[in-house]
Amino acid sequence: MKRKLVSLSLVVSLGLLLAACGNSKSKQMTTLSNGSNNTYRTVVVNGKYLVSKSRGVNLDNGNSITSLKSFDSGLINVAKQEFAPKTYIFQEGQYLSSHTINQWLARKSEKHPQGLNPAKGSKDNPNPEYLQQIEEQDFMTQSGNQLSLRGMVIGIAVNSQYQYQKKADGPTYTKDIESSEAQAAGKAAAAKILQRLRQKKATQRIPIVFAIYQQAGDESLVGGNFVAYTRAEGNQIQHWKKLDYQTKLLPEVETTTTKTDKKDDDTQNFTNFRDRIQNFFPNLSGVTAQAQYYNGNLSGMNVTISTQFYSESEIQSFTQYVERQAKKYLPSGVPIEIKIQTTDNDIQAVVYRDGNSDNYNRHVFSAY
Amino acid sequence: MKRKLVSLSLVVSLGLLLAACGNSKSKQMTTLSNGSNNTYRTVVVNGKYLVSKSRGVNLDNGNSITSLKSFDSGLINVAKQEFAPKTYIFQEGQYLSSHTINQWLARKSEKHPQGLNPAKGSKDNPNPEYLQQIEEQDFMTQSGNQLSLRGMVIGIAVNSQYQYQKKADGPTYTKDIESSEAQAAGKAAAAKILQRLRQKKATQRIPIVFAIYQQAGDESLVGGNFVAYTRAEGNQIQHWKKLDYQTKLLPEVETTTTKTDKKDDDTQNFTNFRDRIQNFFPNLSGVTAQAQYYNGNLSGMNVTISTQFYSESEIQSFTQYVERQAKKYLPSGVPIEIKIQTTDNDIQAVVYRDGNSDNYNRHVFSAY
Repeated sequence: MKRKLVSLSLVVSLGLLLAACGNSKSKQMTTLSNGSNNTYRTVVVNGKYLVSKSRGVNLDNGNSITSLKSFDSGLINVAKQEFAPKTYIFQEGQYLSSHTINQWLARKSEKHPQGLNPAKGSKDNPNPEYLQQIEEQDFMTQSGNQLSLRGMVIGIAVNSQYQYQKKADGPTYTKDIESSEAQAAGKAAAAKILQRLRQKKATQRIPIVFAIYQQAGDESLVGGNFVAYTRAEGNQIQHWKKLDYQTKLLPEVETTTTKTDKKDDDTQNFTNFRDRIQNFFPNLSGVTAQAQYYNGNLSGMNVTISTQFYSESEIQSFTQYVERQAKKYLPSGVPIEIKIQTTDNDIQAVVYRDGNSDNYNRHVFSAY
Repeated sequence: MKRKLVSLSLVVSLGLLLAACGNSKSKQMTTLSNGSNNTYRTVVVNGKYLVSKSRGVNLDNGNSITSLKSFDSGLINVAKQEFAPKTYIFQEGQYLSSHTINQWLARKSEKHPQGLNPAKGSKDNPNPEYLQQIEEQDFMTQSGNQLSLRGMVIGIAVNSQYQYQKKADGPTYTKDIESSEAQAAGKAAAAKILQRLRQKKATQRIPIVFAIYQQAGDESLVGGNFVAYTRAEGNQIQHWKKLDYQTKLLPEVETTTTKTDKKDDDTQNFTNFRDRIQNFFPNLSGVTAQAQYYNGNLSGMNVTISTQFYSESEIQSFTQYVERQAKKYLPSGVPIEIKIQTTDNDIQAVVYRDGNSDNYNRHVFSAY
């Protein structure tokens, strides 16, 4: 076992944490550094990554992987505002099991007294299921040989639509949920979850951050966004702060928005970028982007370029050309990811830049 | 137009080349540098990448993209031995059109007198179709304002199997082709192609390199390999040189090969790497690799890791862990590419290293 840990940054034995987990077997705990100031160290037990106690439950609940990634990575970004990566160690949620989360996501009923979604009500016009998923993230500090739980983040995703059938084999109806109504339901659920967590010894006193994520409708081409969060020190939630994330698909349809709008600059830059590479290479099937904004400022952009098949030499030249045009036209100071792929989503190359770097990296995938 | 060319490395007007192409309109030609000593500059005409005159024909002939990439990138590697990238500029094949190549790949018949595959013969036991694809690559030099064709590489892929039906709606039969027989057919085709090219003005005197690629059988999990090449200065092919490429799928089944074998060291290193990461993360669906050998020495390795769905935090930690283990266990001095993807081939992250660097790069794909 010892040999396995040579590359890990620290080895601690964790009597106290393990007692809190109700597990008295001896475990060897370490953390794994992500090698950057802006990413968390994570917890390793007996040489294995410590996975979430509710691992997979969100996927079972019918979410797409894209939606889950969006939720999960957005939640980490919220967490970073409250628990700085240079101070805290990230741990996948260890206090809420799959069973608990499934109970909580259920409609309230005799069978599910803990259910946080409303009882079904009228068969012809049922109450919405507001809550879609719940995710726990733990934040630890290390003192000597010991990791202790110092904070928790609970992400709550609410639906913007719900589906129902009036009879078992009948048609499926879709109803929109008002954004304010869904958010209110998410906040009410957060208040109840807070009370439940305060009754557990391990989470009685730690700060608990709640963040509400609003799913996009089924017809939307972009994921949802985080809309509000709060930090609870005591038993009550005091005040929710608004989170202003927006995701925009580029190129967008012409609007009447004034040209001085910051977002329109980004749109124009992207359009210039796209025109350049479409002019340079024949038969590009599509150049699109997702731009994310935080408080009205661009916070990142993911570009997808779909190509007809290109030979290795074409892909090499194209990728290099894309990098040059990205440098010239795409906004600086934010992370950029450009995926070059076949029309059936087979990755051919990637060009990317971290937010804090001016330099792009590129890689062309190879075949033997 | 001028503005489009600002980032390109040189602007040349090309009377002579254009005359050779039989095209007297004025075109603005430039080259695009790939920014490395070991990759070719490529030709750009009127701000557009100059694509092959036979573009797409090989895909039309029923090749998989993987097999085409393997053929195409292997051909460039052969070319580099004869036409060094620091001296020569790469141009996608401009002298053999799709029509010509399709004529040459046909079975010889009244309709296809130029066909290089043998006539069908007996319906019940037809002659094999030896030739699968033909690709042209051009190598130019620049002198003053002028690019001139200085060399050509012709890749010829031969089949290791062929399929036939005895009657129109009947069953399909598959027959293996002896390796030596297929290679002999490829070499005979090269001799004929050389004679045809020597009759064209542009290719009358330049050195022409022929390289024979042997396709893997349909049941093979790895692509084919280049097996022989020759450089013809005159009208006859003098001597074929053997090319010793091998592609191996790892982990491989235990063999009785002696443990001092170089390849077995690579296998052992890969197995150590795989065991480490499989121990560290639960539910990996598969860790496999393709190792390529040139003259018995490892020349590169592509690793594919299939994961069950992971959250963003899991993927971040996993990718970083994979990088450390790659540094520790995978062979140095050759290019390594590690693809981390879902079981349905959706890319999640990539870890890679160029052959001439000790450092790995990694990128985790994001979603908004």
